[in-house]
Amino acid sequence: MEQFLEKAKSASRLLATMSGSERNRVLREMAQSLRANTMNIIEINAIDMQRAEEENLPSSLKDRLMLDEKRIEAMAVAIEEIAALKDPVGRVIEGWVTEAGLKIEKVSIPIGMIGIIYESRPNVTSDTAALCFKSSNGCVLKGGKEAEQSNKIIADILQQVLVRNNLPKELISLLPDASREGVAKLIKMDKYVDLIVPRGGEALIQFVSKNASIPVVKHDKGQCHLYVDKDANIDDALRIAINAKVQRPSACNSIETLLVDSAIADTVLPLFKEVFDKEETLLKGCDQTRAVISIAEASEIDYDTEYGENILNIRVVDGVDGAIEHIVRFGSAHSESIITENITTAEIFMNSIDSSTLYVNASTRFTDGGMFGFGAEVGISTSKLHARGPMGIEGLTTYKYKVYGKGQIR
Amino acid sequence: MEQFLEKAKSASRLLATMSGSERNRVLREMAQSLRANTMNIIEINAIDMQRAEEENLPSSLKDRLMLDEKRIEAMAVAIEEIAALKDPVGRVIEGWVTEAGLKIEKVSIPIGMIGIIYESRPNVTSDTAALCFKSSNGCVLKGGKEAEQSNKIIADILQQVLVRNNLPKELISLLPDASREGVAKLIKMDKYVDLIVPRGGEALIQFVSKNASIPVVKHDKGQCHLYVDKDANIDDALRIAINAKVQRPSACNSIETLLVDSAIADTVLPLFKEVFDKEETLLKGCDQTRAVISIAEASEIDYDTEYGENILNIRVVDGVDGAIEHIVRFGSAHSESIITENITTAEIFMNSIDSSTLYVNASTRFTDGGMFGFGAEVGISTSKLHARGPMGIEGLTTYKYKVYGKGQIR
Repeated sequence: MEQFLEKAKSASRLLATMSGSERNRVLREMAQSLRANTMNIIEINAIDMQRAEEENLPSSLKDRLMLDEKRIEAMAVAIEEIAALKDPVGRVIEGWVTEAGLKIEKVSIPIGMIGIIYESRPNVTSDTAALCFKSSNGCVLKGGKEAEQSNKIIADILQQVLVRNNLPKELISLLPDASREGVAKLIKMDKYVDLIVPRGGEALIQFVSKNASIPVVKHDKGQCHLYVDKDANIDDALRIAINAKVQRPSACNSIETLLVDSAIADTVLPLFKEVFDKEETLLKGCDQTRAVISIAEASEIDYDTEYGENILNIRVVDGVDGAIEHIVRFGSAHSESIITENITTAEIFMNSIDSSTLYVNASTRFTDGGMFGFGAEVGISTSKLHARGPMGIEGLTTYKYKVYGKGQIR
Repeated sequence: MEQFLEKAKSASRLLATMSGSERNRVLREMAQSLRANTMNIIEINAIDMQRAEEENLPSSLKDRLMLDEKRIEAMAVAIEEIAALKDPVGRVIEGWVTEAGLKIEKVSIPIGMIGIIYESRPNVTSDTAALCFKSSNGCVLKGGKEAEQSNKIIADILQQVLVRNNLPKELISLLPDASREGVAKLIKMDKYVDLIVPRGGEALIQFVSKNASIPVVKHDKGQCHLYVDKDANIDDALRIAINAKVQRPSACNSIETLLVDSAIADTVLPLFKEVFDKEETLLKGCDQTRAVISIAEASEIDYDTEYGENILNIRVVDGVDGAIEHIVRFGSAHSESIITENITTAEIFMNSIDSSTLYVNASTRFTDGGMFGFGAEVGISTSKLHARGPMGIEGLTTYKYKVYGKGQIR
């Protein structure tokens, strides 16, 4: 693995000297090549699908694994959209002249080599490879075992385009040893890899965070909350609660717990029950909630669980302070929203919680690179440093200082 | 340790809700309290000094350990300067309105709890405590064993000011177990500590980087280079080389290796020898260098050594490409400078090397928070992410998104 990573690392240095228009041309060629190979990809994907069938994998997973003409076209379009993005590298972030007369430019640069660990959906392979290439980073990809053959043919196609353009194929590579041991080894290779992005289940994220000697930007769980304040517009509260829970329960930016101000619990809880019953949401509640509406009981463990399904905890809290206390204890620093017309209450909520994204009067479902206007998304970071929340292509850059003098000494 | 850190973590949350003027008032009280306790501090510092004497510690270390009235006054002034800085928290870094009409503000916030590991100089205790307090972060400090008593009294004085102001003393704490095992434990406490900043020798940095489950911003070695191009102004080159090596050889931003363009080696090497001989610099050279001037031999190991003393390697390279090749191989991504009047050559150098700070026609000694105009400095980061190069108080902040809606759903 070391030899392979050394090659990849030195290949990644090449990218920094390539012009943006050349990189974009190669990206568009990759999109075309995916299109031209549609039938090949579908054929190979069938092998993964058959194995998934034999191993009785859940149908949701099989759905994510499956590639057809439409999905391959979407992959190609995604690469073209990435090619159309503004170059994230070379941006002057800040600039000033020091007392000694030095002109300083803080300039965005590639991170170098990025290792990305993900699951299931094979389109992540082409998406992340394109995002890394666009931002002049090399990448080592480690997809899920269930998508092994699909990922392999996609990477092969992208690599062929690299080779046709006289670029080292190591710029976009699959991890040669995709076992757990391979991952354990990869995350210690700080000499060659500059950043690890794990996207996936809690066990994977924990394993990587605890064992990596390389900086990690994790894409961890979303234990998101919606708090309905006594000064809320109740119509907004109902619409937003439904959207935040029901529209796509499997998304990490969906809510798991609804917090209701005790001052309005008696009047609003029946309204929430009515709208959620229509959506067949399974409701669980605290004792105070269950004194008003008849639903199942919520335990401490429930408050800590990312359901990923159409299940919702409801808890009555004492005003915004009670909501903050609950969120600080159970939240995963992802997304929280307050529904209130009171500006002071809203600011207390926004300033007292350090989740990556805080909302007033909007659905948590907006925590998303596309919705934020970033164009393409590496994922939703739950790390506190480097990139937080929706992580656009800028998250794949760091910076350096370029200092222009005329003979200055200290 | 866990109980203690839990207290510290929840104390750090308090800080975020305090006003900037209140924080600054407490900081100024800390400065005053250090002044008022000058004699106490000197008395206690004598215990550390005596032990250093008994244990025959090197005189450079004893010099850094020693506190007198002047140094304590400087510590107080440093805190007052930190109080005078603009608040790094609450800054709107970016703001925009999305297609859905959401108003997004990207706002700087404290990181939370910061663990800082450092050596020798007791003033680091008050400096970093003040920087963390100013930026609304709690801190756990682990100073060097040799400064144990001095660090303890300084922390005690700062804690007394916290308590007098009804603030939890855990906001500024020394690590209770300051042994290697204590450090090993601290760097795994990701539940309570959000960032570890190790400043010190290579062994410490390696140990922390390999074993921490908390994000690390390291302050590692400075293997810095000066390249003199064939198009250099030779007077500038000589002045800058002397400054970059001799002014303070122990500083991490001093150069260890001088690279000379082969096109001018014959004419300039004797000039360099002349000026460095006057400064009694020990010169070591490659074969090509030694064919022109008579100096000791430089080995591969020398090119990889941060001397921290008045010793300099000289190597002849083939133009800017040769210089880049050497720096990519031996550099520590700290600071490099090119002396040239040719703008194209300068840009090749600046764009091909990904060190944190790159100079044209200036001394590497400017890589410093003060010189950059940051006012106060946490240190010089050699990490690639979060903070690179001179790390001002902004490096002790991260960000969150505050999103203002009017009922939007997806």
